[in-house]
Amino acid sequence: MAADLSRRIVAEALGTAMLVATVVGSGIMADRLTDDVGLTLLGNTLPTGAILVVLITILGPISGAHFNPAVTLVFALRREINATAALAYVIAQLVGGVAGTLLAHAMFELPILQISQTVRTGNGQWLAELVAAFGLVFTILAGLRFRSDAIPWLVGLYITAAYWFTASTSFANPAVAIARAVSNTFAGIRPVDLPAFVVAELLGALLAMALAGWLFSEPKPSDR
Amino acid sequence: MAADLSRRIVAEALGTAMLVATVVGSGIMADRLTDDVGLTLLGNTLPTGAILVVLITILGPISGAHFNPAVTLVFALRREINATAALAYVIAQLVGGVAGTLLAHAMFELPILQISQTVRTGNGQWLAELVAAFGLVFTILAGLRFRSDAIPWLVGLYITAAYWFTASTSFANPAVAIARAVSNTFAGIRPVDLPAFVVAELLGALLAMALAGWLFSEPKPSDR
Amino acid sequence: MAADLSRRIVAEALGTAMLVATVVGSGIMADRLTDDVGLTLLGNTLPTGAILVVLITILGPISGAHFNPAVTLVFALRREINATAALAYVIAQLVGGVAGTLLAHAMFELPILQISQTVRTGNGQWLAELVAAFGLVFTILAGLRFRSDAIPWLVGLYITAAYWFTASTSFANPAVAIARAVSNTFAGIRPVDLPAFVVAELLGALLAMALAGWLFSEPKPSDR
Amino acid sequence: MAADLSRRIVAEALGTAMLVATVVGSGIMADRLTDDVGLTLLGNTLPTGAILVVLITILGPISGAHFNPAVTLVFALRREINATAALAYVIAQLVGGVAGTLLAHAMFELPILQISQTVRTGNGQWLAELVAAFGLVFTILAGLRFRSDAIPWLVGLYITAAYWFTASTSFANPAVAIARAVSNTFAGIRPVDLPAFVVAELLGALLAMALAGWLFSEPKPSDR
Repeated sequence: MAADLSRRIVAEALGTAMLVATVVGSGIMADRLTDDVGLTLLGNTLPTGAILVVLITILGPISGAHFNPAVTLVFALRREINATAALAYVIAQLVGGVAGTLLAHAMFELPILQISQTVRTGNGQWLAELVAAFGLVFTILAGLRFRSDAIPWLVGLYITAAYWFTASTSFANPAVAIARAVSNTFAGIRPVDLPAFVVAELLGALLAMALAGWLFSEPKPSDR
Repeated sequence: MAADLSRRIVAEALGTAMLVATVVGSGIMADRLTDDVGLTLLGNTLPTGAILVVLITILGPISGAHFNPAVTLVFALRREINATAALAYVIAQLVGGVAGTLLAHAMFELPILQISQTVRTGNGQWLAELVAAFGLVFTILAGLRFRSDAIPWLVGLYITAAYWFTASTSFANPAVAIARAVSNTFAGIRPVDLPAFVVAELLGALLAMALAGWLFSEPKPSDR
Repeated sequence: MAADLSRRIVAEALGTAMLVATVVGSGIMADRLTDDVGLTLLGNTLPTGAILVVLITILGPISGAHFNPAVTLVFALRREINATAALAYVIAQLVGGVAGTLLAHAMFELPILQISQTVRTGNGQWLAELVAAFGLVFTILAGLRFRSDAIPWLVGLYITAAYWFTASTSFANPAVAIARAVSNTFAGIRPVDLPAFVVAELLGALLAMALAGWLFSEPKPSDR
Repeated sequence: MAADLSRRIVAEALGTAMLVATVVGSGIMADRLTDDVGLTLLGNTLPTGAILVVLITILGPISGAHFNPAVTLVFALRREINATAALAYVIAQLVGGVAGTLLAHAMFELPILQISQTVRTGNGQWLAELVAAFGLVFTILAGLRFRSDAIPWLVGLYITAAYWFTASTSFANPAVAIARAVSNTFAGIRPVDLPAFVVAELLGALLAMALAGWLFSEPKPSDR
């Protein structure tokens, strides 16, 4: 990593803030402009996928562009980031994420402080979050192995798909989930529903790490 | 191919499962959110195109990312994969595809086991499937000849177009077709309509192989 | 050009056929699925932009992927293709384009032979076609000068934009215009409106050629 | 910069004209075709994002593809363009932008000269413009630092997102804002609301310049 820790932390906070401002802000915009919920999700999906490509490209060289505690956890377990930096990253992601929600509220002239009342619970939702985070972390680890220059596009496109193919619209990120709990708008989630989402996301991430560890290992000559 | 056969088979099964989960899952999501069928198809198209770019990029280096028995057949006929591996690929694609459907049902809390009742039959549908598979295989073979790094994008964009310009919404893949037969949702197809779809897809693939064989052959000096 | 003339002509005919089948077919599909004309145009735009990226990438190495008499004319005037080949290209584009329309009709089980009754005339439409073809040819010539590897994307994205910012939805291609005259569906145009469209398109192409000739010429040292 | 000043100025004027013609023209087209304002914004977003990728790719090698006085100001302050050229750029952007609006009106057969009556004012709008311009300039400066070849895509995707996540739909460009003031259509803005938009955009640009100056500076060895 070329940058010192203070710059890396600022990059994580800024990137997570911009990501959450996009998720929450585009949800508010789409919800205001149309009564068709399918179109609202589309107006939420395209900006989220697009900003992910941008943020990972421009901040990746500074911090690695995790923007996601589940991703940071995996890199810490793989010893690609040390424990102190990992903790600092997660704090920056949480602070940045909530700041992104507040910024979106301010731009749309909504009450700055809100608590979501959107129910998101049940086996289907939890399985969806596990699948969503599995796919995200698997995509990142595969990208690092084979095409690191393509990671911004891979993540942006993966999330574009996952918004639609997972029943939970793919939060896949504990920091983003927490930030969305303080917005009673389209993208919100009840605080009481957070813990199960976070657990499912972390499980999905660890599952991806395990599978990638086997699938992308170098084959032994005797395997041929 | 860098990976041993067990990893290649897992990659084929995983990739086909994620592809089908996206096709079926995004169809369910879109169908629930809007009453406008045009928007439903759009909400089905974008995730499918996006996940294809991702899956082919991240699993291509392991297995070649066929995810499609028609593609595996063509590579077997071109002697780029041996018969044993080809058979294993097709089985993995079939198993993975059905697993993807079941996963989508579980995420959306629908009955896990279903049989589609969606009628898809007639000359127009069969011609559309032939055209769809022709275009897909032709695109892959041309990509391999001229721009192998671009194949993930080429396939994702081709299917994005083919969902709309073919009357059948472009299944173009016998494993995906079979997997869609066990889902009575937007993406489904009646089992009785499967055989003709599979035949049309294989014919289209063989036609593409023949045309590509001539069009992309090296010109003889005397042709100039 | 690596390929002999027969392969080049087949590539031009095949590419124009696939392009027109996409334009006409996706228009029929979108028109059937939704009553919202904005959504219909979107369902027409995305497939057209996507297939252009694919077709130019996979057939460009064979024929240059003109698919458009206005483009072939400009290359002939720039002496980058000889007159015989240019004439053969234009015939292949016209034949391929009409074949693409017929293929779309067959897939959607419509009468194969149709004549459009869609009125597209007036100063605004003609100006729009001039602008559309100017932008297309200017984009291609600039791409050839600076980023030839990016031309498939540049053309696909340019047409994606031009479908919406030109009042005519950007035909920008005499062969495609003629092929659309034999389809009485969303993408159609009355035969009587064709001549003015073709003239406007050729004028726009020549204007782009002139501007590009000056703008992309090497600056003389004394200009600095 | 390879080109002489006259070519650079023409490139800035032409690029800004095409950009504004796309913003205004696609807004008119979308507004005519659908009653769903969410879909109208989508029909405005996709063409704008697409044309930005094209214009920056094809004109960047000539002029740097600013098309935006806020961007030119930042490059002047960074001494990457001299004051005379910067002034000429801004004039070209203003003239080109207004010409783009007039061209869109002519294509859609609307009165050529119009004054917008669309109210866009208030703290939320101004904050949104500051955020929009901050993100745009930050993206450009980061792109220049790490991935200059990716800048066309980064800007196109950033604006695609910003149309939805900022409450103002992200003008982010004083020349485009002024050009939109002379169009009483979907994309318009009342002239009286312009000054505050321009101030917010310039402030956002300067803020991005300051943050990028620190974040992308080379770390001192002692910082490690």
